Amino acid sequence: MSVKINENYLLLESSYLFAEISRRVEKFQTENPDAQVIKMGIGDVTKPLPKAVIKAFNEAVTEMGNSETFMGYGPEQGYSFLIDTIIENDYKSRGIELDIDEVFISDAAKCDTANIQEIFGLDNVIAVTDPVYPVYVDSNVMAGRTGSIQDSGRYEGVVYMPSTAENNFIPELPKSPVDLIYLCFPNNPTGTALKKEDLAKWVEYARENDAIILFDAAYEAYITEDDIPRSIYEIEGAKDVAIEFRSFSKNAGFTGTRCAFVVVPKQVKAVDSEGNKHDLNSLWNRRTTTKFNGVSYPVQKAAEAVYTDEAKKEIQENIDYYLENAKIIKNSMEELGLDVYGGVNSPYIWVKTPENMDSWSFFDLLLEEANVVGTPGVGFGPSGEGYLRLTAFNTLENTKEAMERISKLSL
Amino acid sequence: MSVKINENYLLLESSYLFAEISRRVEKFQTENPDAQVIKMGIGDVTKPLPKAVIKAFNEAVTEMGNSETFMGYGPEQGYSFLIDTIIENDYKSRGIELDIDEVFISDAAKCDTANIQEIFGLDNVIAVTDPVYPVYVDSNVMAGRTGSIQDSGRYEGVVYMPSTAENNFIPELPKSPVDLIYLCFPNNPTGTALKKEDLAKWVEYARENDAIILFDAAYEAYITEDDIPRSIYEIEGAKDVAIEFRSFSKNAGFTGTRCAFVVVPKQVKAVDSEGNKHDLNSLWNRRTTTKFNGVSYPVQKAAEAVYTDEAKKEIQENIDYYLENAKIIKNSMEELGLDVYGGVNSPYIWVKTPENMDSWSFFDLLLEEANVVGTPGVGFGPSGEGYLRLTAFNTLENTKEAMERISKLSL
Repeated sequence: MSVKINENYLLLESSYLFAEISRRVEKFQTENPDAQVIKMGIGDVTKPLPKAVIKAFNEAVTEMGNSETFMGYGPEQGYSFLIDTIIENDYKSRGIELDIDEVFISDAAKCDTANIQEIFGLDNVIAVTDPVYPVYVDSNVMAGRTGSIQDSGRYEGVVYMPSTAENNFIPELPKSPVDLIYLCFPNNPTGTALKKEDLAKWVEYARENDAIILFDAAYEAYITEDDIPRSIYEIEGAKDVAIEFRSFSKNAGFTGTRCAFVVVPKQVKAVDSEGNKHDLNSLWNRRTTTKFNGVSYPVQKAAEAVYTDEAKKEIQENIDYYLENAKIIKNSMEELGLDVYGGVNSPYIWVKTPENMDSWSFFDLLLEEANVVGTPGVGFGPSGEGYLRLTAFNTLENTKEAMERISKLSL
Repeated sequence: MSVKINENYLLLESSYLFAEISRRVEKFQTENPDAQVIKMGIGDVTKPLPKAVIKAFNEAVTEMGNSETFMGYGPEQGYSFLIDTIIENDYKSRGIELDIDEVFISDAAKCDTANIQEIFGLDNVIAVTDPVYPVYVDSNVMAGRTGSIQDSGRYEGVVYMPSTAENNFIPELPKSPVDLIYLCFPNNPTGTALKKEDLAKWVEYARENDAIILFDAAYEAYITEDDIPRSIYEIEGAKDVAIEFRSFSKNAGFTGTRCAFVVVPKQVKAVDSEGNKHDLNSLWNRRTTTKFNGVSYPVQKAAEAVYTDEAKKEIQENIDYYLENAKIIKNSMEELGLDVYGGVNSPYIWVKTPENMDSWSFFDLLLEEANVVGTPGVGFGPSGEGYLRLTAFNTLENTKEAMERISKLSL
């Protein structure tokens, strides 16, 4: 008699990407204490919260100090003042109708995209793009929906859909049957956005093949080009087959404040083993009420203020600032003769390494020779090998300085 | 080909306890619009956050509006400023040594107690007291660690340990082998606290039987009597066999602010199928970094301020206030000739219904005749049948008014 661990955890690769990056950067810093390292690795924002957000946030905190206005437990699904505001601004304005109980407020799109698999059976086949945000895969490994990792760097039982320069980073539709398809557009890490007609193909595929799309739209605020949907529900028929994830992290700077939401339309259904259909909305609601306790009230008030005209203006200025950095990075790398992708509808720039160098070698080269930290593409999946991700979230000064240093290298 | 749901969700009882209470209260209110209903059901606090907490909370929000002090992603496990403060105040002061990486900051003890089962294999046998906080059981049902619910109101495959007046609400040690034992003391819902020697028996049992105790100490701030441990680690040897859950909800009024923590000592181990031992601390860390994104920075600063002398004083005053309410409830119900438990080291009063009335009948009687809302004991498990839980979190005025109304009933 002895307690057993969840052995699926043993299938996980031992080192998480960003932990390995930290380790190498720390080692370099220790050996080179005078080096001014510029971090363009982790996708974390640097601009402060908008003034209108700070004002609402502070006011809500003050409410918590007063008996008459104090707020205790809120609804696990989030307050209607925030949900209504989200529906009005992000959806109704784009012709998408949602009911209040189709939107669930949470503390992170990371948590939502990691937790969503819990409402599905273990016998579903998942499909991910390659490269991919590691959380989609790891959460399924931990749940037992995969086999072990192969020499190819792929987990057994998972369908990987390569996104490389060869297909313009738009993966082909799966050739073998899949159930749950994780899509993130604008994409992390490649920075690619999907045009409406391209995303429509996925919705059509899901409808025809009884699959469900788990659509991560965390980077929608960076879309600058026309004809790129900000929500998957802009595609006709998507409400039958798609769950959408959003976050306040990358638009409003909430990476340290924590607020996100997930949309689960009531018409998205899945079946039990007898073929009876069930609403995923009800299952997600049950999960939410049982395993979650709602987002901090002041944080929800802060998130509501993201939609004020004043905050919207400030947010757009911040995004323009980051996109200007992206342009600088893109241009600098292109001037070096490198193939560069993303950076137009995305804060991410996806760089092909010079002379088929592998991702970690290029990472080490930039760290050691230019003291610039990127993210090795291979960390996002085997098809990311030979690429490096740079982010536009640093300051303009640091971005320029980093590019100047890199331009002096002979690549 | 069609997406399959997690069928374990179908095993769950359809109506969550508090949803059913809300339904009955709303129906009563609609039919009796003039009735002044006093809610003593859900365990939610009413006193505002302490002034020192509000101050720190507001200051941290202001930091988020300034480029120089803005905070992006923090460590998923929580900031060291908060963890250090917790260890110093809650543990070191009681002779318990903990390393900084043995404490994980989270947004809710509800989430932690629901999520902890994920790091364990599905073949572990869980044991819960009966009555019990429903989240412990439901999270295991959803994960697939149980069979279906029986006519007895118990899930197949779960070991229930009755806590009733007959055993002074101290359950007997399990007679059949169990792996994971959920204990909550001071107990929700019975209000019972365990003396050191009684808790020591559980630690001894776990050590001798290779079991692990999941110890929910969310109500430790209400302990008033001597010789009642505030942490399970006050028991020698507990660090080898126990994980402890704490929260800022019930002491500092964080039910709407959201902050909690879990302690996973590095020496707590479990085995894989080949008998190799693994640190649960490492597994929980892996779960935390993959499926969680940390607690809001301003909320963590607010939680840190809970430990200032000024806040501690205010918190103690609030707890004394709630405990005075508890005493009033206890005395009033006893004067009515009812058997009453809890309310001394706990904000919960556990009342035996008069004349063996069932829980829901007594609930309806109090709602209809006194317009007072309690929580039916049977909602916490079959051994809660014939009991009702009242909470001390309302105002003194409402508590007195409620007791006055009830005292006029002929029970």
